[in-house]
Amino acid sequence: VTRQHPDQMVLVDAADERAAIVGILEAAGANSREAEAQAHVLLEADLRGRPSHGLQRLITIRQRIENGVMIPGAALQVDRRADCYFSIDAQGGFGPYAAFQAVTLALDAAAKCGVAAAGLRNASHIGMLAPYLEFIVARRAIGIAFATSEALVHPAGGISAQVGTNPIGVGIPTDADAPFVVDMATGATTAGEIIARRHRGEQLLPGQAVDAEGYPTTEPEEALRGAISPFGGAKGYGLAVAVELLVALLTETALGRAVHGTLDVDRPVTKGDVFLVIDPTRLGLPNVAAYVSDYLRELVATPAAPGTDGVRMPGERARLERQRRLVEGIPHPRHLWQAIQQLSLTSSGPRAS
Amino acid sequence: VTRQHPDQMVLVDAADERAAIVGILEAAGANSREAEAQAHVLLEADLRGRPSHGLQRLITIRQRIENGVMIPGAALQVDRRADCYFSIDAQGGFGPYAAFQAVTLALDAAAKCGVAAAGLRNASHIGMLAPYLEFIVARRAIGIAFATSEALVHPAGGISAQVGTNPIGVGIPTDADAPFVVDMATGATTAGEIIARRHRGEQLLPGQAVDAEGYPTTEPEEALRGAISPFGGAKGYGLAVAVELLVALLTETALGRAVHGTLDVDRPVTKGDVFLVIDPTRLGLPNVAAYVSDYLRELVATPAAPGTDGVRMPGERARLERQRRLVEGIPHPRHLWQAIQQLSLTSSGPRAS
Repeated sequence: VTRQHPDQMVLVDAADERAAIVGILEAAGANSREAEAQAHVLLEADLRGRPSHGLQRLITIRQRIENGVMIPGAALQVDRRADCYFSIDAQGGFGPYAAFQAVTLALDAAAKCGVAAAGLRNASHIGMLAPYLEFIVARRAIGIAFATSEALVHPAGGISAQVGTNPIGVGIPTDADAPFVVDMATGATTAGEIIARRHRGEQLLPGQAVDAEGYPTTEPEEALRGAISPFGGAKGYGLAVAVELLVALLTETALGRAVHGTLDVDRPVTKGDVFLVIDPTRLGLPNVAAYVSDYLRELVATPAAPGTDGVRMPGERARLERQRRLVEGIPHPRHLWQAIQQLSLTSSGPRAS
Repeated sequence: VTRQHPDQMVLVDAADERAAIVGILEAAGANSREAEAQAHVLLEADLRGRPSHGLQRLITIRQRIENGVMIPGAALQVDRRADCYFSIDAQGGFGPYAAFQAVTLALDAAAKCGVAAAGLRNASHIGMLAPYLEFIVARRAIGIAFATSEALVHPAGGISAQVGTNPIGVGIPTDADAPFVVDMATGATTAGEIIARRHRGEQLLPGQAVDAEGYPTTEPEEALRGAISPFGGAKGYGLAVAVELLVALLTETALGRAVHGTLDVDRPVTKGDVFLVIDPTRLGLPNVAAYVSDYLRELVATPAAPGTDGVRMPGERARLERQRRLVEGIPHPRHLWQAIQQLSLTSSGPRAS
C-alpha cells in the first residue's frame, strides 16, 4: 500500500484546475458547453472538500471518451411523457451538460404545473447533486434529486455489493447567504471517497465498509475488494433500495449489479438520475425563504452537545471549505496533478499541430 | 421506574382491538368512516410490532376529542392549487380519514399528470405511513410520503430537540406477495417507541437518545426529558431537516418547536403530511412490478454477512410479525388493555343512556 505524506500534496488554484479540465475535454472532442459544465461540477466538488467527485474523475472521463463509451456532442432526446414529466435520453453524452438541461426543462414546467420532474438516462456521471440543486434554488424553486450508481453497497445482513451508493439531494431557497442544500450518499461512503483516501494514504472510518468476506475494514484496498456499508444500518439500506427502485423505474435504467459506466472505462452508462422541481410561487406558497431561514437560525443556535463543537447548517462545512480553497488553493495529491498536467500537454499537442 | 414483566402482557385478538377502537371513537362522536380509518392504522401498527403507532395512541386521541382540539366530522377543505397539486385543510379532523382522501385525490390526478401531490394540514396524527403507501401501491402507482412531528430530535452536535422524527415513506408495486414499502423515521427512534418501551419496562438501544444534558442514555424516562438522536448521525440530521422544511413549506404548517398536537391533548395540531404519487402507466413505464421483483429476489439471495441471519426485504420483519399476530393475537401491556376496556365501558354507557 502506497502512503502519501502531506508534502506529497500540491495546492492548485481553482482557475488553473478549471482551465486544465476544459482544455483536456475540448481536446478530447467536447464542445465548450459540455466542457464548462463538466469542469464546474468537478471543480465545485474539489472546492468543497469532496475529491471523490472532483478532478480524479477526469482521467476516467477522458478514457471513456477515447474508448467510445462517452460521446461528446451527443444530442439530448427529450420525450415529454406528460405536461410536466420529461423522459430524457442523453445518448451517451456528458452527464453535467445533460443534467443542467433536464433541470431547466423541469423548472420551466414547474412554473406551469407546480410540480415537475425529469428522468435522465444514458448520461455520464453527473457528479455531486448539489450544483443542480443550487441551480434550481437560484430560480427560487425547491429541488429533490435522486441517482443510482454502480452496486457498491451491501444490503444490511449481506456480504456483497448489490445496491448503489444512490445519493439523495434536497435544495430549498433561504434568505441567508447560502441556500439549504442536502446532498448525501445513502452508502456510508462513496467509491470516489475510498479512491480519494487511497490516493492520500488515509484509512476509512469504522463502519464505512466491509472486506470481501464481509468483515468490517478501514483499509481502502480491502474495501474496494469488498463493499461499502449502508449509512445508518437497516434504515439506510431501506432508503438506498428505495432510491435504486425509484430511479431505475423512472429513468428505465438498470438495477443493482447491472449498473455500469461511471467508474469503469469501457462500458456504456446504465445508471439514472431523477430531478423533481416544485415551484412554490405557482402553488401559492409565499415567503418560503424567510420562513425557512428563521428556523435554520434557531437550529444553529441550539446549545452544543457535550464533546462537540456545536450545530452546523447541513452543508456548512463544505461552504466554509469552499471559501478557504478559493483563496488558498485546492490540495491535490502531487501524482494526480502531474497526471492532469501530462494530459494537458498531450491534449494541447495535437490541437496545436 | 415501573418495570413490567412479560406476564403483565395480554394477548388481544385483532378483531377485538378493532371493535374496541371503533366503539370508543364512535361514542366520542366519530362517524363510521373516521373510526374505521383510525382503527385500521392503529391496528396495522400493532400487528406489525410497532406499538409506538398503535393502540396506546387511542387514549390521547380520545382526550383530544374531549378537549375540542380534534373534531369528529370536520369537513375537508380541498384547494386545487394546480391541476395535480392539492392543498388540503382537514380543519382539525381525523388524520387517517383525511390522509386516505388526500391520497385518493393524488392518485386520480396522477392518472392524468403522471406525477401528482397533496399536502395535508390540520389533520390529527396519521400514524404509520405504510398504510397509505400500500393503498397507493394497490392502485399500481408509486408513492412517496413525508411528514413532520413534534420537535423530538436534537440536531447533530446539539443538546436539545429542534427537529421532528419526520418519517420518509416509499411504496413501489411488485409482483411478489407483498409490495416494496419503506416507512422510516429519520430519528433513531420515535416518541411512541420510547413510550412503548417505558410501558414494557424495556431499555432503549444505544445511540437512540440523549438525556436533558445531551449525554447518551438508554433509559426511556431520561430520553423523554432529553431528545431522540438523528439516525445515521449528520446524514440523518440533514435528511430530517430536509423533510421538516419540505413538509412545512408544502403544507403551510409549523417548523421545529412550533409543531404541536400529536402527543399532547390540548393543542391544535400544527404538523403536516405530504403525499407524492407517480403513475407509471401514465408515464409509459410498463412492467414495473416484474422488474422490481427480480431485483428484490437477488437482494434477498445475497450471501449472509458474518454474525447476521442474512438479508431481508425492507419491511419483511413487520410482515412476518403481522402474519403471526393475526393468528396468535397482539401482545399489549395489561394496564393498557385494561384502560381501553374501561374506556369501552364508559363509552358505551352514555351512548346507551
